[in-house]
Amino acid sequence: MFKEAIYHRPKDNYAYACAEDELHIRIRTKKDDITEVTLMAGDPYEWEHDQWITTMVQMKKTGSDQLFDYWLASIKPPYRRLRYGFILSDGVESVCFTEKGFYPEPPLDDIAYYFCFPYLNGSDVFKAPKWVKNTVWYQIFPERFANGDQSNDPEGTLPWGSEGPTPENFFGGDLEGVIQNIDYLKTIGINGIYFTPIFKAHSNHKYDTIDYMEIDPQFGNEETLKQLVQTCHENGIKVMLDAVFNHSGFYFPQFQDVLANGENSPYKDWFHAREFPLKTEPAPNYDAFGFVPEMPKLNTENPEVKEYLLEVGRYWVREFDIDGWRLDVANEVSHAFWQEFRREVKAIKPDLYILGEIWHDSMPWLRGDQFDAVMNYPFTTNILNMFSKGTVGPTEFMENMTTVIHMYPRNVNQGAFNLIGSHDTPRILTECGGDINKVKQIFAILLTFYGTPCIYYGDEIGMDGGMDPGCRECMRWETDQQNRDLFEHVQKLIQLRKENEVLANGGDLQFLYGACEGDACFAYSRSNGEKTAIVIVNNSQDPTEYELPFELKRKTIKNLWTGEKFTAEAEKLVATVEGNGFAILEFEKAPIDENTP
Amino acid sequence: MFKEAIYHRPKDNYAYACAEDELHIRIRTKKDDITEVTLMAGDPYEWEHDQWITTMVQMKKTGSDQLFDYWLASIKPPYRRLRYGFILSDGVESVCFTEKGFYPEPPLDDIAYYFCFPYLNGSDVFKAPKWVKNTVWYQIFPERFANGDQSNDPEGTLPWGSEGPTPENFFGGDLEGVIQNIDYLKTIGINGIYFTPIFKAHSNHKYDTIDYMEIDPQFGNEETLKQLVQTCHENGIKVMLDAVFNHSGFYFPQFQDVLANGENSPYKDWFHAREFPLKTEPAPNYDAFGFVPEMPKLNTENPEVKEYLLEVGRYWVREFDIDGWRLDVANEVSHAFWQEFRREVKAIKPDLYILGEIWHDSMPWLRGDQFDAVMNYPFTTNILNMFSKGTVGPTEFMENMTTVIHMYPRNVNQGAFNLIGSHDTPRILTECGGDINKVKQIFAILLTFYGTPCIYYGDEIGMDGGMDPGCRECMRWETDQQNRDLFEHVQKLIQLRKENEVLANGGDLQFLYGACEGDACFAYSRSNGEKTAIVIVNNSQDPTEYELPFELKRKTIKNLWTGEKFTAEAEKLVATVEGNGFAILEFEKAPIDENTP
Repeated sequence: MFKEAIYHRPKDNYAYACAEDELHIRIRTKKDDITEVTLMAGDPYEWEHDQWITTMVQMKKTGSDQLFDYWLASIKPPYRRLRYGFILSDGVESVCFTEKGFYPEPPLDDIAYYFCFPYLNGSDVFKAPKWVKNTVWYQIFPERFANGDQSNDPEGTLPWGSEGPTPENFFGGDLEGVIQNIDYLKTIGINGIYFTPIFKAHSNHKYDTIDYMEIDPQFGNEETLKQLVQTCHENGIKVMLDAVFNHSGFYFPQFQDVLANGENSPYKDWFHAREFPLKTEPAPNYDAFGFVPEMPKLNTENPEVKEYLLEVGRYWVREFDIDGWRLDVANEVSHAFWQEFRREVKAIKPDLYILGEIWHDSMPWLRGDQFDAVMNYPFTTNILNMFSKGTVGPTEFMENMTTVIHMYPRNVNQGAFNLIGSHDTPRILTECGGDINKVKQIFAILLTFYGTPCIYYGDEIGMDGGMDPGCRECMRWETDQQNRDLFEHVQKLIQLRKENEVLANGGDLQFLYGACEGDACFAYSRSNGEKTAIVIVNNSQDPTEYELPFELKRKTIKNLWTGEKFTAEAEKLVATVEGNGFAILEFEKAPIDENTP
Repeated sequence: MFKEAIYHRPKDNYAYACAEDELHIRIRTKKDDITEVTLMAGDPYEWEHDQWITTMVQMKKTGSDQLFDYWLASIKPPYRRLRYGFILSDGVESVCFTEKGFYPEPPLDDIAYYFCFPYLNGSDVFKAPKWVKNTVWYQIFPERFANGDQSNDPEGTLPWGSEGPTPENFFGGDLEGVIQNIDYLKTIGINGIYFTPIFKAHSNHKYDTIDYMEIDPQFGNEETLKQLVQTCHENGIKVMLDAVFNHSGFYFPQFQDVLANGENSPYKDWFHAREFPLKTEPAPNYDAFGFVPEMPKLNTENPEVKEYLLEVGRYWVREFDIDGWRLDVANEVSHAFWQEFRREVKAIKPDLYILGEIWHDSMPWLRGDQFDAVMNYPFTTNILNMFSKGTVGPTEFMENMTTVIHMYPRNVNQGAFNLIGSHDTPRILTECGGDINKVKQIFAILLTFYGTPCIYYGDEIGMDGGMDPGCRECMRWETDQQNRDLFEHVQKLIQLRKENEVLANGGDLQFLYGACEGDACFAYSRSNGEKTAIVIVNNSQDPTEYELPFELKRKTIKNLWTGEKFTAEAEKLVATVEGNGFAILEFEKAPIDENTP
């Protein structure tokens, strides 16, 4: 037994409250080493005849990656307190694993050996707003979505789509343009919009804020935003704005004041000056986003700055009823600030969604006291590695996804913000070398996966474009410039996700390891106890037969994509999946164990 | 190479800020598997010719336990941002370990592979108050320390020490008794007192609070507490009170109201009633501490209760200038509550010490946003396992201590509240079967170790007593009933700790593996770059020679315990340590690597 590979530590993704009355306990072991894991658990204060009273719960293997197997048990401690250990067996040896180490037999004379989840306090349970689970997001870069009001166009605005995007040019997109196209958004089926920044700023991307309390005049004014939010809400669409609190823009008046007056500025402590006077060349002598002098880092430890930004956070929620905040460069701002931010904005609107921009392992921000979700770039990376770079095949893809899923609690995964591109990446069609079938497969995964999917404006009509600024082209409104086939594909997937709860977050996810030639396909199931859906994706160019790894004989199976129904006749169902295609099958009741991570 | 045994995840004890400008990065590997670990690190935004610029830092092995080796590197990222990976070698194979897994060569085209410590924000740095590091605590159980004012004795008070303690009896100890004996405390050398509860309560231990805003009349009144705090402060002694916020007492009026009026009580949501009316038999139908009906759990998620308790927390700091709060059953109250508690009390007194009672792994409470320390019972357990139960020998003792030390950041360890007994455990002399030499050894360890030591009243004069109530006997004031030899031993150790910063938290700690016959001794060094002290403890009954595992030739060595100085003549120093004895040696400059955990 490889004891050194066994890992468990209470809290985070290994022991967490998945509900107010239920805990998930997970453990990680070396791949293919342990054959059985039993959770041994009890209330710390329940004793009989000087022996601690415990329950045994068989743990289920919820997935494997390159190196590890992961196991899970759910338990509802009647008094919300839990002490526990693990009985692990590899078929030869059996040991008891506790906080104090390994023992041949579980010690029952003292609970001090055991791991502890001391109390399931409701206020510590990670809870994203309920509506988020059923949201399909659409990301809008306002300068490039639609020009609804030419009167607010900045000087030098170019005719819509007349040329390619550059870091400097403007095309006149604005909030009115979104209002006017609300029907388009409804037609796709999305029900949440994530807007990149709309506050007064210098650039076309508006990440260089000048005034956090003012709508950029190029985009409209407070009245336009109110109207936009109202229109969205009337159409069942949530509105999320982008808060850039890590740094201000160069023309933020407080920063300009420090530039001009140095140490004598009343704002000298609003930033992180390493010396005075400030200089921008050859490198800024103050902290910045990266080394970009135009984006001076805000000192959120200064109570004045903190209060200013918290009021920004509160103001747009309180006065404009927005539904979410997306937080730019969230990982470089302190945890202390975000804890306070959460308390303040949730006090105004408890079901506000807080989404952090973090590209790496984000567990420290997802403990329930800071963010509801982060932008799930590891999901994006795995997708791109398979479909774009071709550096991983189906098995490795499933393993990598398994790693990511097991990095977080299940309730965190359910709110994850899954994306396949943004204003910061090349567009998905470009990543796929223009291969529409791959893009269709990717949308099929995005819209049948855990978490909440986000579509970057224009991706649904086959827009292409490389890394910024290429990916920020004007939305193509002429239908003859749109890939309508792709549009309908995306539309249909969204519809399917809405009609079949099991494909959204009503269903648990499990990767399947069925038989198919040449590692061509991968598959996963979504199930909710009543129904199971299976998504099979064929990564090869040729039609491939995929044999499902469980019995389905005499089950009625519905092909959700085509609507056909048939009855499985063989012991095991073999599905034929087209080259670079996918299948979505559904049947009553899960024939498989619920080994969901 | 055993890749599955390699563990690292940013934050907590693996990547943390040990100061406002410095990070500690740790990694765990299978014991005796990896021969060299290099930290590869850089600012995420520093690139040259499309390649990420990195620095290489050799990591040092800071300890080993039964299964693992632990490695550490310190690094001061110039812009407070860090991305990093590890180059691990076992002499045969070399691999790069990143957040995304293992690679034969470090990928340099993308930082997304790497672990991330996104920004060293000052407000997230774990900081215990500075004074705590230099504090020697003394725990007083007020009912049993000294009766200074007979006018407040409860009815039925027994003559001081006239009989043994029972769960019910009273001896009249009070705050005035502490004031009158301040010279005794000064003579021992302690400079902090931890008082078990002093608020109005029914029992003799006062953990069943009736009124959190009133001093128990048996102990004195507000005036007495003011005088006590003043007297302590004048004598350089800090005062810590005990807050029992997990549960109230049975006679807490709000609880009595719910008992009487059930659902109609205005306090019905102050507790966790599972049904009304409340009943205590056969088991409480409301949440309690354990299943003790007399200790109903408070509902800290009720804003009224929260505000009431926060005001308790603020009140005694604001009005009485206390220096610390010890939090009873702290692990069963929500993290959310403690985060708020910390903000509130630290706003009044930034260098207030917050100590949680947690017996198990406490990392989730020691992230900088909740407690400054927890009661280090794992330290106690290791001590008892060796000296009392005899279940571990010196090597295992060092390994177990190594495990505990590596569970936390170094700055957390420096503030750990180390104890060898309390009102909740048998007394140390009883644990040691009356063996005074063992008790002396234990005090030697306690007072030369990492963290802040705490002495339970009377342990310094050799009082004995079993589990509660046995350990709560009246303090023995007649010197002929005190073990004066032990008293002087403790006094001298405290003095040594004060005079030699290296023995307190000015010095880093490292276990040593020198040669000695039959695994009889263990040793550790404390060093601060200028000086090194070595503590050697002989666990056998016979005098034993211990060969220090490094060269000391021609070094002047001072025996701190005897004051003798001598010059080492042989290559390696062999110290003879008496049976059940110890030695404390000191010399200039560390001859050893600073491989401190």
